[in-house]
Amino acid sequence: MVGIGPGGEEDLTGRAFHTIDDADLLVGYTAYINLVKEMSCYHGQETYATGMTREVERVQYAIEAAGRSLLVAVVSSGDAGVYGMAGLVLEVMESSGQYAALEVIPGIPAANSAAARLGAPLMQDYATISLSDLLTPLPDILARVEAAAAADFVIVFYNPRGKNRKDPWDKALSILKKHRGPDTPVGLVSRAGRFGESVKITCLEHLDRHEPDMLTTVIVGNSRTRVANGRMITPRGYEL
Amino acid sequence: MVGIGPGGEEDLTGRAFHTIDDADLLVGYTAYINLVKEMSCYHGQETYATGMTREVERVQYAIEAAGRSLLVAVVSSGDAGVYGMAGLVLEVMESSGQYAALEVIPGIPAANSAAARLGAPLMQDYATISLSDLLTPLPDILARVEAAAAADFVIVFYNPRGKNRKDPWDKALSILKKHRGPDTPVGLVSRAGRFGESVKITCLEHLDRHEPDMLTTVIVGNSRTRVANGRMITPRGYEL
Repeated sequence: MVGIGPGGEEDLTGRAFHTIDDADLLVGYTAYINLVKEMSCYHGQETYATGMTREVERVQYAIEAAGRSLLVAVVSSGDAGVYGMAGLVLEVMESSGQYAALEVIPGIPAANSAAARLGAPLMQDYATISLSDLLTPLPDILARVEAAAAADFVIVFYNPRGKNRKDPWDKALSILKKHRGPDTPVGLVSRAGRFGESVKITCLEHLDRHEPDMLTTVIVGNSRTRVANGRMITPRGYEL
Repeated sequence: MVGIGPGGEEDLTGRAFHTIDDADLLVGYTAYINLVKEMSCYHGQETYATGMTREVERVQYAIEAAGRSLLVAVVSSGDAGVYGMAGLVLEVMESSGQYAALEVIPGIPAANSAAARLGAPLMQDYATISLSDLLTPLPDILARVEAAAAADFVIVFYNPRGKNRKDPWDKALSILKKHRGPDTPVGLVSRAGRFGESVKITCLEHLDRHEPDMLTTVIVGNSRTRVANGRMITPRGYEL
């Protein structure tokens, strides 16, 4: 289980680099395998890449290959343990009874690579919420948005909005506007550190002018977050 | 601003490694500078290390040196943007009007290196809360614990408990017990990937037998988190 971070080779940890380098087989979502193929730790290792929604099949293939004594690297973007594949691998092992030796190798989560591009929005307590309702009921998601907004967490949204899935985003926006002022800073980052990178800072009032997609990470400031010199800052509380 | 992750060289990203390697001056908390001195990107660079609570002074020194055209790496453990030094650097620049070119280089946050050692506890929405009340009033912290516990977030506690600061931890425990069952899995990790590493999995009922310190990251599962084969899993929701 290898998290590769935002996608560029420079954001890979040494541990992730060496694991991919040593692996016999790389398994992952097609887009992530393609990112790895551009890195210098790729030198023709066998790959097994499938599209979205075929996660379970991919993991079963990986576990079966590990059972044949292959060294398998299951690749996720960001951190393999945050909405990634690490949990699914453990679940499939448990339900199938096929256990293989496994190491989870963390990567830079999307929340943190986005935050770094925006400044320092995560200096105070924050909550990470995926707005994808494919695997979690929408009422549960919205209850979390409400709780996090009311308790003044900085909020990081993953998977904010899909082509055919705009409802969770619209509803989350309405909830945020109940609890935070119109000038609350909001950052939107996609493809951090990669070709096509986009970094924008706006405010809650104007957020509906933006159309984040599934590759965008959105960070909504808390009541103390401000923008200075083009960067988002959530003060930690030091006296200056 | 460089986040070095949990502390071992293998957990450094390429970008962090090269930045430290190229720097003229390394600035940071003494314990973190000592970690960097054991890495192969350290080759005698000048260092400025000070103890806890002298963060502002350290940052002023770094900004002043950058003004003298030195390439300065301000080093934090974990991610520089999560309760780290990135925000303070931006704040001091803003208040002093001394701006230097600055890049925030993310590292593996403590939450994620701890999660990787425990299994896959962060596969669902999670909230990160620091229990240090040095810079945040305790009632605000406890309100966040209450909100996160009620909305079924997985909860990551940073700085859970100090030698002379046990009250926030005791109060947070009482709140958690109101909202989650006694068998809720809880993981405690300190010094992940370093000498003296400790990884423990217990449950909410027995958590008061443990005495986490300032270097421990505590991850409390949500209502669906379970332990299988010695690892914490929060199911993402896939059908198996």
